[in-house]
Amino acid sequence: MTETKQATGPKPKKSVGLSGVAAGDTAICSLGRTGNELFYRGYDLLEFADVCEFEEIAHLLIHGKLPNRAELAAYRTKLQGLRSLPAVVRTTLEALPASSHPMDVLRTGVSALGCAMPEKDDHGESGAREIADQLVASLGSMLCYWYHYSHSGHRVHVETQDDSIGGHFLHLLHRKAPPAPWVRAMHTSLNLYAEHEFGTSTFTARVIAGTGADIHSCIAGAIGALRGPKHGGANEASLGVQQRYATPDEAEADIRRRVAAKEAVMGFGHPVYTLADPRNQATRAVARRLAEGAGDTKLYDIAARLERVMWDAKKLFPNVDWYSAVAYHMMQIPTPMFTPLFALARVTGWSAHVLEQRADGRIIRPGANYVGPEQRAFVPIDRRP
Amino acid sequence: MTETKQATGPKPKKSVGLSGVAAGDTAICSLGRTGNELFYRGYDLLEFADVCEFEEIAHLLIHGKLPNRAELAAYRTKLQGLRSLPAVVRTTLEALPASSHPMDVLRTGVSALGCAMPEKDDHGESGAREIADQLVASLGSMLCYWYHYSHSGHRVHVETQDDSIGGHFLHLLHRKAPPAPWVRAMHTSLNLYAEHEFGTSTFTARVIAGTGADIHSCIAGAIGALRGPKHGGANEASLGVQQRYATPDEAEADIRRRVAAKEAVMGFGHPVYTLADPRNQATRAVARRLAEGAGDTKLYDIAARLERVMWDAKKLFPNVDWYSAVAYHMMQIPTPMFTPLFALARVTGWSAHVLEQRADGRIIRPGANYVGPEQRAFVPIDRRP
Repeated sequence: MTETKQATGPKPKKSVGLSGVAAGDTAICSLGRTGNELFYRGYDLLEFADVCEFEEIAHLLIHGKLPNRAELAAYRTKLQGLRSLPAVVRTTLEALPASSHPMDVLRTGVSALGCAMPEKDDHGESGAREIADQLVASLGSMLCYWYHYSHSGHRVHVETQDDSIGGHFLHLLHRKAPPAPWVRAMHTSLNLYAEHEFGTSTFTARVIAGTGADIHSCIAGAIGALRGPKHGGANEASLGVQQRYATPDEAEADIRRRVAAKEAVMGFGHPVYTLADPRNQATRAVARRLAEGAGDTKLYDIAARLERVMWDAKKLFPNVDWYSAVAYHMMQIPTPMFTPLFALARVTGWSAHVLEQRADGRIIRPGANYVGPEQRAFVPIDRRP
Repeated sequence: MTETKQATGPKPKKSVGLSGVAAGDTAICSLGRTGNELFYRGYDLLEFADVCEFEEIAHLLIHGKLPNRAELAAYRTKLQGLRSLPAVVRTTLEALPASSHPMDVLRTGVSALGCAMPEKDDHGESGAREIADQLVASLGSMLCYWYHYSHSGHRVHVETQDDSIGGHFLHLLHRKAPPAPWVRAMHTSLNLYAEHEFGTSTFTARVIAGTGADIHSCIAGAIGALRGPKHGGANEASLGVQQRYATPDEAEADIRRRVAAKEAVMGFGHPVYTLADPRNQATRAVARRLAEGAGDTKLYDIAARLERVMWDAKKLFPNVDWYSAVAYHMMQIPTPMFTPLFALARVTGWSAHVLEQRADGRIIRPGANYVGPEQRAFVPIDRRP
């Protein structure tokens, strides 16, 4: 049986359910086989992350290949044309309170889109890819439409002329065109978050896809999984740690105390990588560029000091979320929007995995170890204590 | 390692991903260890399904014990008080078109409820149980509120005085109090659908719960998984098969032709049970009572004939969906509402499993077999073919 053999990835961890158990085959991603490497469809992340536009990587994941210039231009134009929101989605977003978590808003917006423009029952590959493109183009529209409407009553025009998905998001969020270095930072950051094999949110999407459900159900489920603090929620928590301190020295002293008291520190370690998170060096470079560009390296310096402290004290390395938090903060992105940006990127990987699970054709239905009471006598209600 | 050992349930099936692999421990349900039995918290389904009210089983699953008379009365009153929908949810439901699939409506309604009344971040057990009670009490309200508003513009008053969840649903749907035999049929049917170990939608809820996400995210994800035609969607499909025929003889002749042509027939077989689906005998009895009560046994007779034919021709047994379709049809429930009723029942089991996964404390993150290209050279965009 394919399922019960050891996965081709890194060694299992006891603290992780199904760790090291192969839940299926994938040609989309490989990672951690030597402890610290990550490939999307065979391409090394560190070769493309800071070079490619996010639209190239979205095309690679959703449509299967790195586009050439002409294909990229056509894809960009296509995505620009998919930024608008149907009236059903706008009305739904207007109903949601300003106090909502943006991940809950995104989950609800995707779910409403599935009511307004449901996937056809034949589940054709090209139809699913169209929906994936619509989602990657319009999740930023959903977030910012809700954000401005709920906070100020303003209905923003979501069809901007920005060249890129990251630029579109920043433009809508800040209501002005973003500086070029921020657009490049968004490309790199979204590239890093785009895909990660059977990470929990992706696995969620595959489990849902295995029942033959529509792609909106798969993506809404994945958004819910990503929301958890042990998964995508970690980038918000990382900023919280970094912002606690006024200086690197203060940060080091406090974290050494916490480590000695066996407290966990968010943003460090990973369920799969054993040596390092390969995304860390790319996201650290982005954070440093933005901090130096802004002439304000305080947060970056604290983050960098804590990276050294955690390695020195615990041999723990930062994951992708640690410096992403710094980068997003330098671009004045509100903290509750950090995890939604992860979703905006990962929807490309989720969609690729939904298609792959459908091609596999199996429903995913594990067993369980029963540990409860055996064969209790049923007592009719009038004789119950 | 707990995870990789063989599950305590039935033998693995190749056509099912992770079949026979224990994805965790559970004290909520055991099934199929001798091929055809099902226990909720140690109680044999066949002893309670046609005797208990659904509120007793909801209490058993969500609150851990079969209630006595006083506890049941208090629980019923509590659930009656949780039928109303907050304004955010009503506005969202009013935005969704009449053409929506009711499962998409339910997914969106639960997601919007998570925006309006989010779970507190501490994820306390009693808070989660309150939300579970609210969901089991109000999913019927969501469905019927949307149904009447989208089809006729009428905003129904969802706070009825019906004693039971099934009665409340039928009352709202048909806009009149249901006959007593229908109320009893709903109790039995909901009892049968309430819980089923690590079925795919439940497993989805547990995977999402493992990240630390809120319970609304878990339930919205589970609804999406249940929607698929290989899972809950099968009860709709069963009615489609039964309604194709005018007589049992015609049905038998056609199905024998289809079986000879190796066509699959919806409503038969199960990924876990090997001898029979224990829920079938209870749901068959309900369907027969309703058919005889209505003086119209045509659909029941066709279903019963096809049960014999499928066993004779393929040694396949009907699953819980086969006669449920007959029963729901006799109660004049629109076919697209069949799977939502499954959700209304199963939300009790889902909630219990979310609590159990949280207590376990682990994130679920399987591995994969990588089957894609190895280490492709990255080609800059201007040199791509």
